[in-house]
Amino acid sequence: MNKLYVIKIGGNVLDDEKTLHPFLKEFASIQSPKILIHGGGKIATKIGDKLGIESKYIDGRRITDLETRDLVTMVYGGLLNKQLTAYLQALHCNAIGVTGADGNLIKAIKRPVGKIDYGFVGDITPESVNSTFLYFLLKQNVVPVFAPLTYAGEDILNTNADTIASVLAIALSKHFDIRLIFCFEKEGVLKDVKDEKSVIRNLNTDLYQNLLKKGAFHDGILPKLENAFMAIRSGVKEVLIGEHTQLIANLGYETKGTLITA
Amino acid sequence: MNKLYVIKIGGNVLDDEKTLHPFLKEFASIQSPKILIHGGGKIATKIGDKLGIESKYIDGRRITDLETRDLVTMVYGGLLNKQLTAYLQALHCNAIGVTGADGNLIKAIKRPVGKIDYGFVGDITPESVNSTFLYFLLKQNVVPVFAPLTYAGEDILNTNADTIASVLAIALSKHFDIRLIFCFEKEGVLKDVKDEKSVIRNLNTDLYQNLLKKGAFHDGILPKLENAFMAIRSGVKEVLIGEHTQLIANLGYETKGTLITA
Repeated sequence: MNKLYVIKIGGNVLDDEKTLHPFLKEFASIQSPKILIHGGGKIATKIGDKLGIESKYIDGRRITDLETRDLVTMVYGGLLNKQLTAYLQALHCNAIGVTGADGNLIKAIKRPVGKIDYGFVGDITPESVNSTFLYFLLKQNVVPVFAPLTYAGEDILNTNADTIASVLAIALSKHFDIRLIFCFEKEGVLKDVKDEKSVIRNLNTDLYQNLLKKGAFHDGILPKLENAFMAIRSGVKEVLIGEHTQLIANLGYETKGTLITA
Repeated sequence: MNKLYVIKIGGNVLDDEKTLHPFLKEFASIQSPKILIHGGGKIATKIGDKLGIESKYIDGRRITDLETRDLVTMVYGGLLNKQLTAYLQALHCNAIGVTGADGNLIKAIKRPVGKIDYGFVGDITPESVNSTFLYFLLKQNVVPVFAPLTYAGEDILNTNADTIASVLAIALSKHFDIRLIFCFEKEGVLKDVKDEKSVIRNLNTDLYQNLLKKGAFHDGILPKLENAFMAIRSGVKEVLIGEHTQLIANLGYETKGTLITA
Protein backbone atom coordinates (compact mmCIF):
# COMPACT_ATOMS: atom_id res chain seq x y z
CA MET A 1 0.00 0.00 0.00
CA ASN A 2 1.07 3.57 -0.63
CA LYS A 3 2.03 5.81 2.24
CA LEU A 4 -0.29 8.67 3.18
CA TYR A 5 0.51 11.40 5.68
CA VAL A 6 -2.43 12.93 7.53
CA ILE A 7 -1.08 15.98 9.32
CA LYS A 8 -2.81 18.20 11.84
CA ILE A 9 -1.62 21.63 12.91
CA GLY A 10 -3.11 23.71 15.68
CA GLY A 11 -4.20 27.32 15.55
CA ASN A 12 -0.99 28.45 17.25
CA VAL A 13 1.03 27.56 14.14
CA LEU A 14 -1.33 29.64 11.98
CA ASP A 15 -1.17 32.65 14.31
CA ASP A 16 2.53 33.24 13.67
CA GLU A 17 3.81 33.67 10.09
CA LYS A 18 7.31 32.96 11.36
CA THR A 19 6.35 29.42 12.34
CA LEU A 20 3.76 28.92 9.62
CA HIS A 21 5.97 29.52 6.58
CA PRO A 22 8.78 27.09 7.50
CA PHE A 23 6.13 24.50 8.37
CA LEU A 24 4.36 24.90 5.02
CA LYS A 25 7.67 24.71 3.17
CA GLU A 26 8.38 21.36 4.82
CA PHE A 27 4.82 20.19 4.26
CA ALA A 28 4.91 21.14 0.56
CA SER A 29 8.17 19.22 0.09
CA ILE A 30 6.63 15.87 1.13
CA GLN A 31 6.55 13.65 -1.96
CA SER A 32 3.90 11.15 -0.75
CA PRO A 33 0.17 11.81 -0.82
CA LYS A 34 -0.78 14.04 2.08
CA ILE A 35 -3.67 15.78 3.81
CA LEU A 36 -3.50 18.85 6.06
CA ILE A 37 -6.04 19.63 8.78
CA HIS A 38 -5.84 22.99 10.50
CA GLY A 39 -7.36 24.28 13.71
CA GLY A 40 -8.66 27.74 14.49
CA GLY A 41 -6.30 30.21 16.01
CA LYS A 42 -6.59 33.49 17.84
CA ILE A 43 -7.56 35.43 14.74
CA ALA A 44 -11.16 34.20 15.09
CA THR A 45 -11.37 35.59 18.62
CA LYS A 46 -9.79 38.85 17.47
CA ILE A 47 -12.27 39.30 14.60
CA GLY A 48 -15.11 38.12 16.85
CA ASP A 49 -14.20 40.78 19.41
CA LYS A 50 -14.33 43.48 16.74
CA LEU A 51 -17.72 42.21 15.58
CA GLY A 52 -18.99 42.15 19.16
CA ILE A 53 -19.31 38.35 19.21
CA GLU A 54 -18.52 36.96 22.64
CA SER A 55 -17.11 33.51 23.30
CA LYS A 56 -19.81 31.64 25.19
CA TYR A 57 -19.28 28.89 27.73
CA ILE A 58 -21.62 26.69 29.74
CA ASP A 59 -20.00 24.73 32.58
CA GLY A 60 -16.61 25.53 31.05
CA ARG A 61 -17.62 24.07 27.67
CA ARG A 62 -17.46 26.28 24.61
CA ILE A 63 -20.80 26.85 22.85
CA THR A 64 -21.14 27.54 19.13
CA ASP A 65 -24.22 29.73 18.72
CA LEU A 66 -25.40 30.98 15.32
CA GLU A 67 -23.23 34.09 15.20
CA THR A 68 -20.16 32.18 16.40
CA ARG A 69 -20.84 29.57 13.71
CA ASP A 70 -20.95 32.27 11.04
CA LEU A 71 -17.74 33.73 12.48
CA VAL A 72 -15.83 30.43 12.28
CA THR A 73 -17.26 29.72 8.82
CA MET A 74 -15.77 33.04 7.68
CA VAL A 75 -12.47 32.80 9.50
CA TYR A 76 -11.68 29.06 9.41
CA GLY A 77 -13.36 28.24 6.10
CA GLY A 78 -12.53 31.52 4.34
CA LEU A 79 -9.62 33.56 5.64
CA LEU A 80 -7.38 30.83 7.09
CA ASN A 81 -8.24 28.00 4.71
CA LYS A 82 -7.89 30.06 1.51
CA GLN A 83 -4.74 31.79 2.72
CA LEU A 84 -3.18 28.39 3.46
CA THR A 85 -4.27 27.12 0.05
CA ALA A 86 -2.68 30.07 -1.77
CA TYR A 87 0.53 29.77 0.30
CA LEU A 88 0.78 26.08 -0.63
CA GLN A 89 0.03 26.78 -4.31
CA ALA A 90 2.90 29.30 -4.30
CA LEU A 91 5.09 26.44 -3.00
CA HIS A 92 3.97 24.26 -5.97
CA CYS A 93 1.79 22.10 -3.76
CA ASN A 94 -1.60 21.66 -5.47
CA ALA A 95 -3.78 22.29 -2.43
CA ILE A 96 -7.57 22.36 -2.38
CA GLY A 97 -9.13 24.02 0.65
CA VAL A 98 -12.24 22.23 1.87
CA THR A 99 -14.76 21.85 4.67
CA GLY A 100 -16.82 18.73 5.27
CA ALA A 101 -19.62 20.19 3.14
CA ASP A 102 -17.46 20.38 0.01
CA GLY A 103 -18.01 17.32 -2.15
CA ASN A 104 -19.89 15.87 0.85
CA LEU A 105 -16.46 15.01 2.29
CA ILE A 106 -17.54 14.76 5.94
CA LYS A 107 -21.21 14.58 6.84
CA ALA A 108 -21.69 15.10 10.57
CA ILE A 109 -24.48 14.73 13.06
CA LYS A 110 -25.38 17.94 14.89
CA ARG A 111 -24.60 17.17 18.51
CA PRO A 112 -27.85 16.21 20.27
CA VAL A 113 -28.99 18.57 23.00
CA GLY A 114 -28.47 16.92 26.38
CA LYS A 115 -27.65 18.73 29.62
CA ILE A 116 -25.84 21.25 27.47
CA ASP A 117 -26.81 22.60 24.05
CA TYR A 118 -23.45 22.93 22.33
CA GLY A 119 -25.10 24.65 19.38
CA PHE A 120 -23.68 24.24 15.89
CA VAL A 121 -21.21 21.47 16.66
CA GLY A 122 -20.79 18.40 14.46
CA ASP A 123 -19.96 14.90 15.70
CA ILE A 124 -18.35 12.56 13.22
CA THR A 125 -17.25 8.95 12.79
CA PRO A 126 -15.07 7.27 10.12
CA GLU A 127 -18.33 6.36 8.36
CA SER A 128 -19.01 10.10 7.96
CA VAL A 129 -16.19 10.38 5.42
CA ASN A 130 -16.73 10.28 1.64
CA SER A 131 -13.52 8.32 1.20
CA THR A 132 -14.28 7.58 -2.48
CA PHE A 133 -14.06 11.25 -3.45
CA LEU A 134 -11.15 11.90 -1.09
CA TYR A 135 -9.22 8.96 -2.57
CA PHE A 136 -10.00 10.27 -6.01
CA LEU A 137 -8.61 13.74 -5.18
CA LEU A 138 -5.44 12.19 -3.77
CA LYS A 139 -5.01 10.12 -6.94
CA GLN A 140 -5.03 13.39 -8.92
CA ASN A 141 -2.09 14.62 -6.79
CA VAL A 142 -4.35 17.19 -5.21
CA VAL A 143 -3.67 17.95 -1.54
CA PRO A 144 -6.82 18.40 0.57
CA VAL A 145 -6.54 21.10 3.24
CA PHE A 146 -9.37 20.76 5.77
CA ALA A 147 -10.80 23.58 7.85
CA PRO A 148 -12.29 22.33 11.15
CA LEU A 149 -15.83 22.51 9.77
CA THR A 150 -18.30 19.79 8.81
CA TYR A 151 -22.01 19.91 7.99
CA ALA A 152 -25.40 18.32 8.55
CA GLY A 153 -28.40 19.17 6.39
CA GLU A 154 -27.93 22.82 5.43
CA ASP A 155 -25.89 23.70 8.52
CA ILE A 156 -22.16 24.23 8.58
CA LEU A 157 -20.91 22.84 11.92
CA ASN A 158 -17.88 23.44 14.11
CA THR A 159 -15.82 20.24 14.59
CA ASN A 160 -12.62 19.58 16.51
CA ALA A 161 -9.60 19.42 14.18
CA ASP A 162 -7.94 16.51 16.06
CA THR A 163 -11.12 14.49 15.61
CA ILE A 164 -11.29 15.31 11.90
CA ALA A 165 -7.66 14.20 11.48
CA SER A 166 -8.27 10.87 13.28
CA VAL A 167 -11.49 10.16 11.45
CA LEU A 168 -9.97 10.92 8.03
CA ALA A 169 -6.98 8.67 8.82
CA ILE A 170 -9.20 5.78 9.90
CA ALA A 171 -11.50 6.17 6.88
CA LEU A 172 -8.54 6.05 4.48
CA SER A 173 -6.69 3.21 6.21
CA LYS A 174 -8.18 0.68 3.75
CA HIS A 175 -6.40 2.47 0.90
CA PHE A 176 -3.11 3.60 2.45
CA ASP A 177 -0.41 2.88 5.00
CA ILE A 178 -1.11 5.90 7.15
CA ARG A 179 1.05 7.94 9.43
CA LEU A 180 -1.19 10.35 11.33
CA ILE A 181 0.88 13.24 12.66
CA PHE A 182 -0.32 15.57 15.41
CA CYS A 183 1.86 18.67 15.54
CA PHE A 184 1.99 20.43 18.86
CA GLU A 185 4.33 22.65 20.87
CA LYS A 186 6.46 19.92 22.48
CA GLU A 187 9.01 17.54 20.97
CA GLY A 188 6.86 14.54 21.84
CA VAL A 189 5.13 12.72 24.67
CA LEU A 190 7.22 13.18 27.82
CA LYS A 191 7.91 10.46 30.38
CA ASP A 192 8.49 13.17 32.94
CA VAL A 193 6.44 16.29 32.31
CA LYS A 194 9.11 18.41 34.03
CA ASP A 195 11.89 17.09 31.77
CA GLU A 196 11.59 18.29 28.17
CA LYS A 197 14.28 15.78 27.20
CA SER A 198 12.37 12.74 28.45
CA VAL A 199 10.63 12.20 25.09
CA ILE A 200 9.30 8.67 24.64
CA ARG A 201 10.55 7.76 21.14
CA ASN A 202 8.44 4.66 20.64
CA LEU A 203 5.18 3.80 22.28
CA ASN A 204 3.07 0.71 21.72
CA THR A 205 -0.07 -0.58 23.43
CA ASP A 206 1.82 -2.65 26.03
CA LEU A 207 4.19 0.14 27.05
CA TYR A 208 1.28 2.59 27.07
CA GLN A 209 -0.77 0.40 29.42
CA ASN A 210 2.26 -0.06 31.62
CA LEU A 211 3.05 3.65 31.89
CA LEU A 212 -0.64 4.43 32.30
CA LYS A 213 -0.79 2.19 35.40
CA LYS A 214 2.21 4.00 36.85
CA GLY A 215 0.41 7.32 36.32
CA ALA A 216 3.20 8.54 34.07
CA PHE A 217 1.06 10.79 31.84
CA HIS A 218 -0.34 14.14 32.86
CA ASP A 219 -3.88 15.24 32.06
CA GLY A 220 -2.91 17.43 29.10
CA ILE A 221 -1.52 14.60 27.01
CA LEU A 222 -4.04 11.89 27.91
CA PRO A 223 -6.81 12.87 25.45
CA LYS A 224 -4.22 12.99 22.65
CA LEU A 225 -2.95 9.52 23.57
CA GLU A 226 -6.44 8.06 23.81
CA ASN A 227 -7.21 9.56 20.41
CA ALA A 228 -3.97 8.12 19.00
CA PHE A 229 -4.59 4.57 20.25
CA MET A 230 -8.19 4.74 19.08
CA ALA A 231 -6.81 5.41 15.57
CA ILE A 232 -4.27 2.58 15.92
CA ARG A 233 -6.99 0.15 17.00
CA SER A 234 -9.08 1.23 13.98
CA GLY A 235 -6.54 0.49 11.23
CA VAL A 236 -4.14 3.44 11.23
CA LYS A 237 -0.61 2.05 11.05
CA GLU A 238 1.30 4.78 12.89
CA VAL A 239 0.53 7.90 14.87
CA LEU A 240 3.20 10.46 15.57
CA ILE A 241 2.97 13.18 18.19
CA GLY A 242 5.64 15.79 17.67
CA GLU A 243 6.69 19.39 17.22
CA HIS A 244 5.59 21.35 14.14
CA THR A 245 9.17 22.50 13.59
CA GLN A 246 10.25 18.85 13.20
CA LEU A 247 7.93 17.74 10.42
CA ILE A 248 10.56 16.38 8.02
CA ALA A 249 12.39 14.60 10.83
CA ASN A 250 9.11 12.99 11.83
CA LEU A 251 8.31 11.51 8.43
CA GLY A 252 10.84 8.69 8.47
CA TYR A 253 11.70 5.78 10.69
CA GLU A 254 13.98 7.52 13.18
CA THR A 255 11.77 10.28 14.51
CA LYS A 256 12.22 13.22 16.86
CA GLY A 257 8.72 12.84 18.27
CA THR A 258 6.77 9.96 19.76
CA LEU A 259 5.96 7.23 17.26
CA ILE A 260 2.94 5.21 18.27
CA THR A 261 2.25 1.75 16.84
CA ALA A 262 0.12 -1.24 17.78
CA MET B 1 -20.99 17.00 -26.92
CA ASN B 2 -22.66 17.07 -23.53
CA LYS B 3 -24.48 20.14 -22.35
CA LEU B 4 -22.96 22.23 -19.55
CA TYR B 5 -24.67 25.11 -17.78
CA VAL B 6 -22.41 27.84 -16.40
CA ILE B 7 -24.63 30.01 -14.23
CA LYS B 8 -23.77 33.30 -12.57
CA ILE B 9 -25.80 34.93 -9.81
CA GLY B 10 -25.21 38.38 -8.39
CA GLY B 11 -24.85 39.37 -4.78
CA ASN B 12 -28.45 40.62 -4.67
CA VAL B 13 -29.75 37.04 -4.95
CA LEU B 14 -27.57 35.99 -2.01
CA ASP B 15 -28.69 38.90 0.15
CA ASP B 16 -32.28 37.69 0.32
CA GLU B 17 -33.07 34.16 1.54
CA LYS B 18 -36.51 34.48 -0.03
CA THR B 19 -35.00 34.71 -3.51
CA LEU B 20 -31.98 32.53 -2.80
CA HIS B 21 -33.77 29.36 -1.73
CA PRO B 22 -36.14 29.06 -4.73
CA PHE B 23 -33.19 29.78 -7.01
CA LEU B 24 -31.03 27.06 -5.41
CA LYS B 25 -33.90 24.59 -5.58
CA GLU B 26 -34.18 25.16 -9.33
CA PHE B 27 -30.40 25.07 -9.74
CA ALA B 28 -30.11 21.78 -7.80
CA SER B 29 -32.80 20.20 -9.99
CA ILE B 30 -30.79 20.67 -13.22
CA GLN B 31 -29.78 17.21 -14.43
CA SER B 32 -26.90 18.25 -16.74
CA PRO B 33 -23.40 19.11 -15.52
CA LYS B 34 -23.39 22.62 -14.07
CA ILE B 35 -21.22 25.27 -12.45
CA LEU B 36 -22.36 28.12 -10.23
CA ILE B 37 -20.48 31.42 -9.86
CA HIS B 38 -21.62 33.84 -7.20
CA GLY B 39 -20.92 37.52 -6.65
CA GLY B 40 -20.46 39.36 -3.40
CA GLY B 41 -23.49 40.97 -1.85
CA LYS B 42 -24.16 43.58 0.78
CA ILE B 43 -23.14 41.31 3.65
CA ALA B 44 -19.44 42.07 2.94
CA THR B 45 -20.08 45.81 3.29
CA LYS B 46 -22.09 45.20 6.46
CA ILE B 47 -19.35 43.11 8.08
CA GLY B 48 -16.70 45.51 6.77
CA ASP B 49 -18.51 48.42 8.42
CA LYS B 50 -18.53 46.59 11.76
CA LEU B 51 -14.82 45.85 11.40
CA GLY B 52 -14.12 49.50 10.51
CA ILE B 53 -13.04 48.66 6.96
CA GLU B 54 -14.07 51.41 4.57
CA SER B 55 -14.82 50.89 0.89
CA LYS B 56 -12.10 52.78 -1.00
CA TYR B 57 -12.47 54.38 -4.41
CA ILE B 58 -10.06 56.23 -6.68
CA ASP B 59 -11.66 58.11 -9.60
CA GLY B 60 -14.85 56.16 -8.94
CA ARG B 61 -13.07 52.78 -9.20
CA ARG B 62 -13.20 50.41 -6.28
CA ILE B 63 -9.83 49.55 -4.72
CA THR B 64 -9.06 46.26 -2.96
CA ASP B 65 -6.49 47.05 -0.30
CA LEU B 66 -5.08 44.38 2.02
CA GLU B 67 -7.78 44.59 4.68
CA THR B 68 -10.55 44.63 2.05
CA ARG B 69 -8.95 41.58 0.45
CA ASP B 70 -8.99 39.74 3.77
CA LEU B 71 -12.61 40.81 4.26
CA VAL B 72 -13.75 39.41 0.89
CA THR B 73 -11.69 36.24 1.41
CA MET B 74 -13.63 35.68 4.64
CA VAL B 75 -17.05 36.69 3.39
CA TYR B 76 -17.06 35.50 -0.23
CA GLY B 77 -14.73 32.52 0.17
CA GLY B 78 -15.94 31.49 3.65
CA LEU B 79 -19.37 32.63 4.77
CA LEU B 80 -21.20 32.88 1.43
CA ASN B 81 -19.43 30.09 -0.44
CA LYS B 82 -19.69 27.49 2.35
CA GLN B 83 -23.28 28.44 3.16
CA LEU B 84 -24.22 27.98 -0.50
CA THR B 85 -22.38 24.66 -0.57
CA ALA B 86 -24.23 23.34 2.48
CA TYR B 87 -27.58 24.57 1.12
CA LEU B 88 -26.93 22.71 -2.15
CA GLN B 89 -25.79 19.55 -0.33
CA ALA B 90 -29.07 19.61 1.61
CA LEU B 91 -30.81 19.69 -1.79
CA HIS B 92 -28.83 16.57 -2.86
CA CYS B 93 -26.62 18.57 -5.19
CA ASN B 94 -23.00 17.52 -4.59
CA ALA B 95 -21.49 21.01 -4.52
CA ILE B 96 -17.84 21.83 -3.88
CA GLY B 97 -17.13 25.44 -2.92
CA VAL B 98 -13.96 26.78 -4.49
CA THR B 99 -11.86 29.85 -5.25
CA GLY B 100 -9.34 30.06 -8.06
CA ALA B 101 -6.60 28.98 -5.64
CA ASP B 102 -8.23 25.62 -4.92
CA GLY B 103 -6.76 22.92 -7.13
CA ASN B 104 -5.09 25.78 -9.04
CA LEU B 105 -8.46 26.23 -10.79
CA ILE B 106 -7.93 29.85 -11.90
CA LYS B 107 -4.48 31.39 -11.76
CA ALA B 108 -4.70 35.16 -12.24
CA ILE B 109 -2.31 38.00 -12.87
CA LYS B 110 -2.37 40.72 -10.21
CA ARG B 111 -3.54 43.80 -12.09
CA PRO B 112 -0.46 45.88 -12.98
CA VAL B 113 -0.26 49.29 -11.34
CA GLY B 114 -0.96 51.98 -13.95
CA LYS B 115 -2.59 55.32 -13.26
CA ILE B 116 -4.54 53.55 -10.55
CA ASP B 117 -3.33 50.84 -8.16
CA TYR B 118 -6.39 48.61 -7.88
CA GLY B 119 -4.69 46.57 -5.17
CA PHE B 120 -5.45 42.88 -4.78
CA VAL B 121 -7.39 42.41 -8.00
CA GLY B 122 -6.83 39.48 -10.35
CA ASP B 123 -7.13 39.63 -14.14
CA ILE B 124 -7.82 36.36 -15.90
CA THR B 125 -8.09 34.83 -19.38
CA PRO B 126 -9.45 31.44 -20.55
CA GLU B 127 -5.83 30.21 -20.42
CA SER B 128 -5.87 30.89 -16.65
CA VAL B 129 -8.26 27.98 -16.10
CA ASN B 130 -7.14 24.49 -15.04
CA SER B 131 -9.79 22.94 -17.27
CA THR B 132 -8.34 19.43 -16.81
CA PHE B 133 -9.15 19.38 -13.10
CA LEU B 134 -12.45 21.18 -13.61
CA TYR B 135 -13.49 18.66 -16.26
CA PHE B 136 -12.49 15.88 -13.93
CA LEU B 137 -14.65 17.26 -11.10
CA LEU B 138 -17.63 17.57 -13.46
CA LYS B 139 -17.13 13.96 -14.58
CA GLN B 140 -17.47 12.90 -10.93
CA ASN B 141 -20.89 14.61 -10.82
CA VAL B 142 -19.47 17.22 -8.48
CA VAL B 143 -20.84 20.75 -8.90
CA PRO B 144 -18.21 23.49 -8.58
CA VAL B 145 -19.44 26.64 -6.82
CA PHE B 146 -17.04 29.52 -7.42
CA ALA B 147 -16.54 32.50 -5.12
CA PRO B 148 -15.35 35.61 -7.01
CA LEU B 149 -11.74 35.07 -5.91
CA THR B 150 -8.66 33.98 -7.82
CA TYR B 151 -4.98 33.98 -6.90
CA ALA B 152 -1.46 34.81 -8.04
CA GLY B 153 1.59 33.58 -6.17
CA GLU B 154 0.56 33.50 -2.52
CA ASP B 155 -2.08 36.22 -2.87
CA ILE B 156 -5.81 35.64 -2.96
CA LEU B 157 -7.24 38.21 -5.40
CA ASN B 158 -10.63 39.82 -5.93
CA THR B 159 -12.05 39.05 -9.40
CA ASN B 160 -15.31 40.07 -11.06
CA ALA B 161 -17.83 37.20 -11.02
CA ASP B 162 -19.13 37.93 -14.57
CA THR B 163 -15.58 37.64 -15.87
CA ILE B 164 -15.01 34.36 -14.02
CA ALA B 165 -18.23 32.96 -15.52
CA SER B 166 -17.24 33.95 -19.08
CA VAL B 167 -13.70 32.70 -18.74
CA LEU B 168 -14.80 29.33 -17.30
CA ALA B 169 -17.36 28.92 -20.10
CA ILE B 170 -14.79 29.67 -22.80
CA ALA B 171 -12.17 27.38 -21.24
CA LEU B 172 -14.64 24.47 -21.13
CA SER B 173 -16.12 25.04 -24.59
CA LYS B 174 -13.80 22.39 -26.06
CA HIS B 175 -15.44 19.77 -23.85
CA PHE B 176 -19.09 20.84 -23.71
CA ASP B 177 -21.95 22.54 -25.54
CA ILE B 178 -22.21 25.45 -23.16
CA ARG B 179 -25.06 27.70 -22.20
CA LEU B 180 -23.67 30.54 -20.11
CA ILE B 181 -26.47 32.11 -18.06
CA PHE B 182 -26.20 35.53 -16.44
CA CYS B 183 -28.97 35.98 -13.88
CA PHE B 184 -29.95 39.54 -13.15
CA GLU B 185 -32.98 41.51 -11.98
CA LYS B 186 -34.73 41.93 -15.36
CA GLU B 187 -36.48 39.40 -17.57
CA GLY B 188 -33.92 39.93 -20.32
CA VAL B 189 -32.31 42.53 -22.59
CA LEU B 190 -34.90 45.21 -23.36
CA LYS B 191 -35.39 46.81 -26.76
CA ASP B 192 -36.89 49.79 -25.01
CA VAL B 193 -35.45 50.39 -21.54
CA LYS B 194 -38.73 52.01 -20.42
CA ASP B 195 -40.80 48.98 -21.48
CA GLU B 196 -40.21 45.91 -19.30
CA LYS B 197 -42.15 43.84 -21.82
CA SER B 198 -39.87 44.66 -24.74
CA VAL B 199 -37.58 41.68 -24.04
CA ILE B 200 -35.50 40.64 -27.05
CA ARG B 201 -35.99 36.85 -27.12
CA ASN B 202 -33.23 36.02 -29.60
CA LEU B 203 -30.16 38.04 -30.37
CA ASN B 204 -27.43 37.17 -32.84
CA THR B 205 -24.41 39.10 -34.03
CA ASP B 206 -26.20 40.68 -37.00
CA LEU B 207 -29.20 41.87 -35.02
CA TYR B 208 -26.90 43.09 -32.24
CA GLN B 209 -24.82 45.20 -34.67
CA ASN B 210 -28.00 46.55 -36.17
CA LEU B 211 -29.55 47.56 -32.86
CA LEU B 212 -26.21 48.89 -31.68
CA LYS B 213 -26.07 51.32 -34.64
CA LYS B 214 -29.57 52.52 -33.78
CA GLY B 215 -28.43 53.21 -30.21
CA ALA B 216 -31.02 50.80 -28.85
CA PHE B 217 -29.06 49.66 -25.78
CA HIS B 218 -28.54 51.75 -22.66
CA ASP B 219 -25.22 51.97 -20.85
CA GLY B 220 -26.15 49.50 -18.11
CA ILE B 221 -26.61 46.53 -20.41
CA LEU B 222 -23.76 47.23 -22.87
CA PRO B 223 -20.91 45.70 -20.83
CA LYS B 224 -23.01 42.54 -20.33
CA LEU B 225 -23.68 42.30 -24.06
CA GLU B 226 -20.04 42.87 -24.99
CA ASN B 227 -19.09 40.18 -22.49
CA ALA B 228 -21.71 37.82 -23.96
CA PHE B 229 -20.60 38.27 -27.58
CA MET B 230 -16.96 37.91 -26.54
CA ALA B 231 -17.89 34.47 -25.12
CA ILE B 232 -19.83 33.60 -28.29
CA ARG B 233 -16.86 34.56 -30.49
CA SER B 234 -14.61 32.39 -28.28
CA GLY B 235 -16.49 29.09 -28.59
CA VAL B 236 -19.40 29.32 -26.17
CA LYS B 237 -22.51 28.12 -27.99
CA GLU B 238 -25.19 30.14 -26.19
CA VAL B 239 -25.39 32.94 -23.68
CA LEU B 240 -28.59 33.70 -21.87
CA ILE B 241 -29.31 36.92 -19.99
CA GLY B 242 -32.36 36.52 -17.79
CA GLU B 243 -34.03 36.78 -14.42
CA HIS B 244 -32.90 34.57 -11.53
CA THR B 245 -36.53 33.60 -10.85
CA GLN B 246 -36.77 32.11 -14.36
CA LEU B 247 -33.86 29.68 -14.27
CA ILE B 248 -35.76 26.53 -15.28
CA ALA B 249 -37.61 28.40 -18.04
CA ASN B 250 -34.26 29.60 -19.34
CA LEU B 251 -32.64 26.17 -19.67
CA GLY B 252 -34.51 24.98 -22.74
CA TYR B 253 -35.11 26.19 -26.26
CA GLU B 254 -38.04 28.53 -25.66
CA THR B 255 -36.68 30.91 -23.07
CA LYS B 256 -38.07 33.78 -21.02
CA GLY B 257 -34.82 35.73 -21.23
CA THR B 258 -32.58 36.85 -24.07
CA LEU B 259 -30.87 33.96 -25.83
CA ILE B 260 -27.69 35.03 -27.57
CA THR B 261 -26.10 32.95 -30.34
CA ALA B 262 -23.57 33.54 -33.11
